[in-house]
Amino acid sequence: MTLKRRSDGTLLNSRRAEICRTAAQIFRARGYDATSVGDLARALKMTKAGLYLYFTGKEALLYEILSVGLDQVRDEIATPVRTVRDPEARLRELVVRHARIVTRAHGAVASLVDETRALPPPARRRIEERMRVYFDLMRNTLVELKAKGRLRDVDVTVAAFSLLGMIFWLPRWFHHGGRLSEDQVAEEIAHIALAGVLRRPPARAPRSHRRGARRRLRGVEAVPNRRPLDT
Amino acid sequence: MTLKRRSDGTLLNSRRAEICRTAAQIFRARGYDATSVGDLARALKMTKAGLYLYFTGKEALLYEILSVGLDQVRDEIATPVRTVRDPEARLRELVVRHARIVTRAHGAVASLVDETRALPPPARRRIEERMRVYFDLMRNTLVELKAKGRLRDVDVTVAAFSLLGMIFWLPRWFHHGGRLSEDQVAEEIAHIALAGVLRRPPARAPRSHRRGARRRLRGVEAVPNRRPLDT
Repeated sequence: MTLKRRSDGTLLNSRRAEICRTAAQIFRARGYDATSVGDLARALKMTKAGLYLYFTGKEALLYEILSVGLDQVRDEIATPVRTVRDPEARLRELVVRHARIVTRAHGAVASLVDETRALPPPARRRIEERMRVYFDLMRNTLVELKAKGRLRDVDVTVAAFSLLGMIFWLPRWFHHGGRLSEDQVAEEIAHIALAGVLRRPPARAPRSHRRGARRRLRGVEAVPNRRPLDT
Repeated sequence: MTLKRRSDGTLLNSRRAEICRTAAQIFRARGYDATSVGDLARALKMTKAGLYLYFTGKEALLYEILSVGLDQVRDEIATPVRTVRDPEARLRELVVRHARIVTRAHGAVASLVDETRALPPPARRRIEERMRVYFDLMRNTLVELKAKGRLRDVDVTVAAFSLLGMIFWLPRWFHHGGRLSEDQVAEEIAHIALAGVLRRPPARAPRSHRRGARRRLRGVEAVPNRRPLDT
């Protein structure tokens, strides 16, 4: 068989995605700077030389992890959410979907956002531009709500970052298998987020009926069961 | 003059606080793991040997930065806030004070919270216990509001962590000297936070009157102008 190669000469196959997943978890647990290529190779049961067939170095690996994470944000949040016409339903959908991705992946990718400083400037700019596109989707939805008189008297930029802060903080405290499921926590956060910014937040269904109520409210297809960067 | 020494034999004076401040900023900019004692000494214009007169090593320095940060949380947030009887006013005060400390210090201490993993287990436990005391103050205030029927139908644990997430995310996006001042951003965040969890969030004064309105609402003494870990 011929091994496919990418433009930088490294190998392109499913092992590559597995390396990203594992590396993201190790970086999260030990810190990006404290993790050497040797540590990664050991955890992946590979030699360092074997790992270099896939990635030219630790920075290239970080860049790919962030890129794959941003692909996921685009495919599982931004693209489906843009089809929701009502800005309130869109905002809700955005928060719920993002919160679920973040808990599902145990925050492995989200925790690497700060490490963009380790990337060479052009790579860092590409990642930051893609993050900005996502931020603008959140902020523009708030601007649209404001124009319709449906937003409380809040600053839309502060509001957008505050909602993102609630979501990005999630993996630091959420425990899988605890009292609340990923879906329940995503619902709770969306409830607090919407009430924080909307003039008339929607009434909440009684607790026992919430799951059904949520499914009716969401109005777009279920999040696919793909887990590119999950544990 | 006799130089005062601490129980571990290191020096105790104002230079020590300055070292903590500078080190916190360097750790934040470059990452804790990526910063060596040599890097710190260079930035402080000291020799490594000189730095070791103050701190037995990088971990001891991290521990002291976190301890001083938690002293500040106790003295400037927890202690004054506990004197506020009404739980809604207390919650508001808590969010405003915490947001102001976080922006003032450019998040230098807040960004090190994740690095507790670098501490030896007993030191790590002491820091985590102190963080827990602060978290409980936030959560118990929400529990009190819930008991009085003043809270929306939210999970108090999710709510407490969500409000903290909004605050801890602040230094990643807030720019000093930008469109909004530290105080204005703290007010905006408190407004969104309270609306997110309260059944009947207080009406907001028109924008031009907000500063005065805030001072009247706060009802406790002004935050002292101490800046132990500020830039």
